[in-house]
Amino acid sequence: MMNILLINGPNLNLLGTREPEIYGNKTLSDIEKDLTKVAKEKSINLECFQSNHEGEIVDKIQESVKSIQGILINAGAFTHTSISIRDALIGSKIPFVELHISNIFSREDFRKESFLTDKAIGIISGFGISSYSLALEGIIGYLSIKD
Amino acid sequence: MMNILLINGPNLNLLGTREPEIYGNKTLSDIEKDLTKVAKEKSINLECFQSNHEGEIVDKIQESVKSIQGILINAGAFTHTSISIRDALIGSKIPFVELHISNIFSREDFRKESFLTDKAIGIISGFGISSYSLALEGIIGYLSIKD
Amino acid sequence: MMNILLINGPNLNLLGTREPEIYGNKTLSDIEKDLTKVAKEKSINLECFQSNHEGEIVDKIQESVKSIQGILINAGAFTHTSISIRDALIGSKIPFVELHISNIFSREDFRKESFLTDKAIGIISGFGISSYSLALEGIIGYLSIKD
Amino acid sequence: MMNILLINGPNLNLLGTREPEIYGNKTLSDIEKDLTKVAKEKSINLECFQSNHEGEIVDKIQESVKSIQGILINAGAFTHTSISIRDALIGSKIPFVELHISNIFSREDFRKESFLTDKAIGIISGFGISSYSLALEGIIGYLSIKD
Amino acid sequence: MMNILLINGPNLNLLGTREPEIYGNKTLSDIEKDLTKVAKEKSINLECFQSNHEGEIVDKIQESVKSIQGILINAGAFTHTSISIRDALIGSKIPFVELHISNIFSREDFRKESFLTDKAIGIISGFGISSYSLALEGIIGYLSIKD
Amino acid sequence: MMNILLINGPNLNLLGTREPEIYGNKTLSDIEKDLTKVAKEKSINLECFQSNHEGEIVDKIQESVKSIQGILINAGAFTHTSISIRDALIGSKIPFVELHISNIFSREDFRKESFLTDKAIGIISGFGISSYSLALEGIIGYLSIKD
Amino acid sequence: MMNILLINGPNLNLLGTREPEIYGNKTLSDIEKDLTKVAKEKSINLECFQSNHEGEIVDKIQESVKSIQGILINAGAFTHTSISIRDALIGSKIPFVELHISNIFSREDFRKESFLTDKAIGIISGFGISSYSLALEGIIGYLSIKD
Amino acid sequence: MMNILLINGPNLNLLGTREPEIYGNKTLSDIEKDLTKVAKEKSINLECFQSNHEGEIVDKIQESVKSIQGILINAGAFTHTSISIRDALIGSKIPFVELHISNIFSREDFRKESFLTDKAIGIISGFGISSYSLALEGIIGYLSIKD
Amino acid sequence: MMNILLINGPNLNLLGTREPEIYGNKTLSDIEKDLTKVAKEKSINLECFQSNHEGEIVDKIQESVKSIQGILINAGAFTHTSISIRDALIGSKIPFVELHISNIFSREDFRKESFLTDKAIGIISGFGISSYSLALEGIIGYLSIKD
Amino acid sequence: MMNILLINGPNLNLLGTREPEIYGNKTLSDIEKDLTKVAKEKSINLECFQSNHEGEIVDKIQESVKSIQGILINAGAFTHTSISIRDALIGSKIPFVELHISNIFSREDFRKESFLTDKAIGIISGFGISSYSLALEGIIGYLSIKD
Amino acid sequence: MMNILLINGPNLNLLGTREPEIYGNKTLSDIEKDLTKVAKEKSINLECFQSNHEGEIVDKIQESVKSIQGILINAGAFTHTSISIRDALIGSKIPFVELHISNIFSREDFRKESFLTDKAIGIISGFGISSYSLALEGIIGYLSIKD
Amino acid sequence: MMNILLINGPNLNLLGTREPEIYGNKTLSDIEKDLTKVAKEKSINLECFQSNHEGEIVDKIQESVKSIQGILINAGAFTHTSISIRDALIGSKIPFVELHISNIFSREDFRKESFLTDKAIGIISGFGISSYSLALEGIIGYLSIKD
Repeated sequence: MMNILLINGPNLNLLGTREPEIYGNKTLSDIEKDLTKVAKEKSINLECFQSNHEGEIVDKIQESVKSIQGILINAGAFTHTSISIRDALIGSKIPFVELHISNIFSREDFRKESFLTDKAIGIISGFGISSYSLALEGIIGYLSIKD
Repeated sequence: MMNILLINGPNLNLLGTREPEIYGNKTLSDIEKDLTKVAKEKSINLECFQSNHEGEIVDKIQESVKSIQGILINAGAFTHTSISIRDALIGSKIPFVELHISNIFSREDFRKESFLTDKAIGIISGFGISSYSLALEGIIGYLSIKD
Repeated sequence: MMNILLINGPNLNLLGTREPEIYGNKTLSDIEKDLTKVAKEKSINLECFQSNHEGEIVDKIQESVKSIQGILINAGAFTHTSISIRDALIGSKIPFVELHISNIFSREDFRKESFLTDKAIGIISGFGISSYSLALEGIIGYLSIKD
Repeated sequence: MMNILLINGPNLNLLGTREPEIYGNKTLSDIEKDLTKVAKEKSINLECFQSNHEGEIVDKIQESVKSIQGILINAGAFTHTSISIRDALIGSKIPFVELHISNIFSREDFRKESFLTDKAIGIISGFGISSYSLALEGIIGYLSIKD
Repeated sequence: MMNILLINGPNLNLLGTREPEIYGNKTLSDIEKDLTKVAKEKSINLECFQSNHEGEIVDKIQESVKSIQGILINAGAFTHTSISIRDALIGSKIPFVELHISNIFSREDFRKESFLTDKAIGIISGFGISSYSLALEGIIGYLSIKD
Repeated sequence: MMNILLINGPNLNLLGTREPEIYGNKTLSDIEKDLTKVAKEKSINLECFQSNHEGEIVDKIQESVKSIQGILINAGAFTHTSISIRDALIGSKIPFVELHISNIFSREDFRKESFLTDKAIGIISGFGISSYSLALEGIIGYLSIKD
Repeated sequence: MMNILLINGPNLNLLGTREPEIYGNKTLSDIEKDLTKVAKEKSINLECFQSNHEGEIVDKIQESVKSIQGILINAGAFTHTSISIRDALIGSKIPFVELHISNIFSREDFRKESFLTDKAIGIISGFGISSYSLALEGIIGYLSIKD
Repeated sequence: MMNILLINGPNLNLLGTREPEIYGNKTLSDIEKDLTKVAKEKSINLECFQSNHEGEIVDKIQESVKSIQGILINAGAFTHTSISIRDALIGSKIPFVELHISNIFSREDFRKESFLTDKAIGIISGFGISSYSLALEGIIGYLSIKD
Repeated sequence: MMNILLINGPNLNLLGTREPEIYGNKTLSDIEKDLTKVAKEKSINLECFQSNHEGEIVDKIQESVKSIQGILINAGAFTHTSISIRDALIGSKIPFVELHISNIFSREDFRKESFLTDKAIGIISGFGISSYSLALEGIIGYLSIKD
Repeated sequence: MMNILLINGPNLNLLGTREPEIYGNKTLSDIEKDLTKVAKEKSINLECFQSNHEGEIVDKIQESVKSIQGILINAGAFTHTSISIRDALIGSKIPFVELHISNIFSREDFRKESFLTDKAIGIISGFGISSYSLALEGIIGYLSIKD
Repeated sequence: MMNILLINGPNLNLLGTREPEIYGNKTLSDIEKDLTKVAKEKSINLECFQSNHEGEIVDKIQESVKSIQGILINAGAFTHTSISIRDALIGSKIPFVELHISNIFSREDFRKESFLTDKAIGIISGFGISSYSLALEGIIGYLSIKD
Repeated sequence: MMNILLINGPNLNLLGTREPEIYGNKTLSDIEKDLTKVAKEKSINLECFQSNHEGEIVDKIQESVKSIQGILINAGAFTHTSISIRDALIGSKIPFVELHISNIFSREDFRKESFLTDKAIGIISGFGISSYSLALEGIIGYLSIKD
């Protein structure tokens, strides 16, 4: 059975609790449950992890080396500042998809640079919370071809 | 019935005829057929268009204003040079998804700038020819919510 | 009798058909008719040309060398990307006025660079569709002094 | 009756007294007289003002708030250096046209940046002293539509 | 008795006469009176000066060398363009506080550079007209420690 | 009763224990006590928090959404590197004042960029430990007007 | 027998019809005839193609994949703007020489960047119409070594 | 007896467990043991510390002020992003050597900037795990001269 | 008899009254007297002018067109900000020498750019108040050769 | 009889002695002999010169003023660093061709800038050792037209 | 027996003769003697070379190809300007260590760029004259592993 | 008796032998003789040195440390490329004047940067060969004050 890890970075724990008129009122927990269910239907085990702490995300990636075959990461603000998450991902050799809820290219200039993008197998940005399911599908497609 | 337009820009007409070891041996025509079939199953009519001529793509977008509800565009090299396709898309007010087969962020520097990205509803880049079906799903999701 | 050529670039064929509350509901055809009439009153023959294709605009400029004494050009998006229209204009040695309906300097950064400006005899930008008649007057004034 | 203010910045008081072979031998006073006459024919009162002192131009704009409906400004060198004239113009809420006798885009690089352009309703540059009458027409057109 | 000089730069003479819904309807004169009163209570003599003329501000600073112990300066547009006010302040050796009513860092890019900041003892920006009283307090604190 | 949160970032826990000749010998604890007292006199409850860990500061801001009306933040080094604190502050919708003990604009170039400034209601920089009381006053003023 | 394709980009169809004192009075047609003759003597078949339309040049390169062993390209203005010609050339895997009549490095700054140069086997620039024969010789030399 | 602190930043805990053909199969623990032994022979007490958490490294440096005479730091990814480690090191006034296993100047561009370098007494980069012993020697040499 | 005009810009009126240990205690008036004497010995009439007001310097240059053969200008801070003085000097066609007391190239970066330098016949910078007499000699040499 | 000087810069004396699989095994001496022979057949006298010393190349160019009609220069690393060779070439007024064995535009960024290019009559880059014979032909063509 | 070459660039011949309070009073000759002795103890033959002439250093590196196994280079000012020494080192394929007495990263900006660094096996900078012995050790370590 | 050294850099040995209509027909030798004479009258011994070799200029400066009190240097092209001459001058602690015959600020952009300027006591540029005598006077003035 395939194991996929979903990582959410800083402030994403608040999804659904604010500005429901924009983001809908699904909480991160709802999203994780829905996605886990979709994954299970495809015989995939989805592990979910969120942290506001860069170091904890690095620790988590390091621990996943043996058990995880693919990573979905919405690194939030760390996308633009964390070389150490980049290094952890490269070091782990686990293929990963970078995803964003909003279109990061229509926001502030500093959100256009990402330390993850050039090492990701693919990028999904701007589809609201659907970005999560598209990313899941994307990594599954990638891993299927690899096999 | 919903009408979606798929636009492929310059040199994408050669997909599948070169470097099959990298891109697989599906031709653009194969991709278009497969995607049309997937669309039909979701009661969507997919129109396919490819051109190496910037002006023809602009013409096509202008003609689509009344009949098309969403656009999937892999503008190829025009992604980075065509303000006139950008203007046609904005002018048409049709929501569009920008898609790329390869991860454009791991290639030459001049491929990191796009004249479409900040106006797209979402971006999909790097999933090989699966980028097409992910983009289709993305636009459907977007249009469903809008309704 | 003096011959003036009016060139409109990509997407300007849609003038008047969209956002009438902003741009008014004069179509490009209306503008061309009005301007032709004004020109005729001043004993000037105005030829009108629009294309979404860069190559066609270059062809048109080349063909005008013998018959045309002045050019009014609203190159639209090509203003910022086409060195080949620049070269055609310089090569033709026909004096030209660069015009824009909106004030291009209050828009996106990439619209602030123009490949035409430093070779134009003058620039008119921001007066709505009145930019066309101001440009006509400008070129007439210029050609009168030259005579 | 409509009141328009014409502002000329530093060194423009010398127009017509130097290099007549280039600029013609109309002095600033001649230009002002001619323009006033044209304005009067259109039932417009034109007030003319020139100064080499940035502060005086700011003072003048401030004093015009109640009496003036439109401004024509050839700010000369201050175009590129004066944020305080920019602020006075914005603060006054009087619509203004930026004009230049020569094509500022074919001159030194530092003349390509303007602190006024993005706030002007329109720009006229390069038509010799005809730039003044084109600007007058431009502002009249603009104010007519506004009414 | 301590003497403090308050300098206001171009266009600040219009405070309170425009956009009262944003800036309130206190005029510069009101602000100066209020601040003078606050100062008097702390046994400080406050001198107030405003000019739209860079040269007059330089003159004023030069004249203050012997009589003034601290300067509060809201240089307005001159903040970003006047090296000569910078030089006058440095030359005078009088400690000064740079203040701004609005948050200059959320405005146009050219307002983010200041010729005064690195030589100021402190910066206060964004507190509306309260920026004036905070600046007064700041300089008093600074001068007290110095004594 | 109004609740204000004071956040101090990395290395600020050492205030007063080093270089007393420059910074005085007030420790962070002393500053917090003094400020709490000043606040209490104005019927304000001041909560104090310091951390060298970016993630803890993000957690703290998230937890404050319901109970806190205003934030004073001296983010220290995180000012220039943490988009995730920026996002937490924006997400919380709590108005905040950015403060610095020294004048960050006279230090290394990389200290001139701040991820907080354009979203702060105001900035106070350079007044030594008085920056804390000025910031408190600034936020109180701001909140009073809002009410 | 070896087949070489000579491509000339926009405005080069006018060679020899303008400024004969600078460029001589050989037309593009003359140049093509002379070069074809030189090629024939070396048992090489030279095909000649010119277009002002970027899309047509891309089409031409795509069609040449099976029949052509080497390309000589003077892309004119497209040198500096066309990523899609670059992509067509790379995709075709046909070795090509980039040539320019004038020394592009002594002209406007925007002519110093080329989208072709780093993928060309060699560059020839500045030798007037002799650049064509030098380029022909260069590609022949290259192809001989390859065999 | 002299006390030296060795700090290793994020992902360096994995040394020796991956890509042994490149980095050899010495783990971080092996390196620390070897270095401790070398240190002991020179009557130096070496304390070893590793963390993936920026805040923990800052805490550690703060705690070392009284007991440690020199620091060896391989900050890994934090080298390029952490101003707060920089501030902690400067604040501590403990001399430190910056070391890197690989030559950071032959890697990605963003690894060429370091927030530590200009404050380090010396830099050692590129000697594989020998960089650790060279750094130890370097700091000893430095401290000997100081005495 | 030859007439030379010496212009001193903002803050130079304070020469000699501050920091005598650095600049000596010669006032601007002393310098002007000494230089006038030196000039007179060479049968040259030296006119001296100082102003803190940019507009007054422009006015002065305009008035000098008929009577003055050469200008010595120490524009102080205006060197780096005044395009209008540049324009006045160019417009006047009077040859001028740019001079500075201190070496402007060893000061702040913004003092390295000058709006006068490329139009000056020569530059003298860094020789203390001797820069004035060197500049006088320089212009005399230049004017002698011209005759 | 025409005299041409061939100059080779630093490290080019080692041609043919290293990496024969890439550069072939022709030494610089072989290349010089071959080229001299080709030249002789065209009644041209070719003088060959190589040096690793910038000063010696400058000396050589100075000495050639009277005897040499054209220069072929492969300045190697000096291409990118030597303004003094540029000055010597310009000063000599001898027309020169800049040549490079490899395509300098596909190498490190710092090799894309050349101090010679804008003053050369033409550039040849990337044709292996054939670049030498193409350059010879190029200069001969140029000199023939000049006669 | 292993042969190592030590190269010292311009002005390093003066080591020890100036500013002994900073650099100590060891001359370059002393350093060379000490290092030779250390080398000999490790059965290494150290050859020492210094020159103020770039060309002589290039010549020296070229001559060393057969006899030398490793190079220690303190290129002084040439570090930042000499592509030709870079090319000589790369061409020689001899592994080299770049060393600097002072920390070049805390000096002028132009000393932060090096043409050698990305090709060096390692860099040592900032340890005073100890940099020489650390570099020797570094190269020995490197060469030992290679064997 | 005071000893001054005059250094002329590359290509300056050709002064007076080319373009006499521009530079006059004084050779470098003439200039040196004239300047020596002027110096002698002021009881100064002037030594003259010219070289096209950077290393020789460095050697010369090093040798002058004991015998020379001031240097006049026209470094020609080395002005913009030689850090090693800069280092030699700084190391020598001999005060120097940088001089240029032409106004280097009206020439190519790369001539606006100088490695000497910020360390020179003064700069003289643009006065033709008179720059030499002005520089001599300047250094004498400087040395007189120092005494």
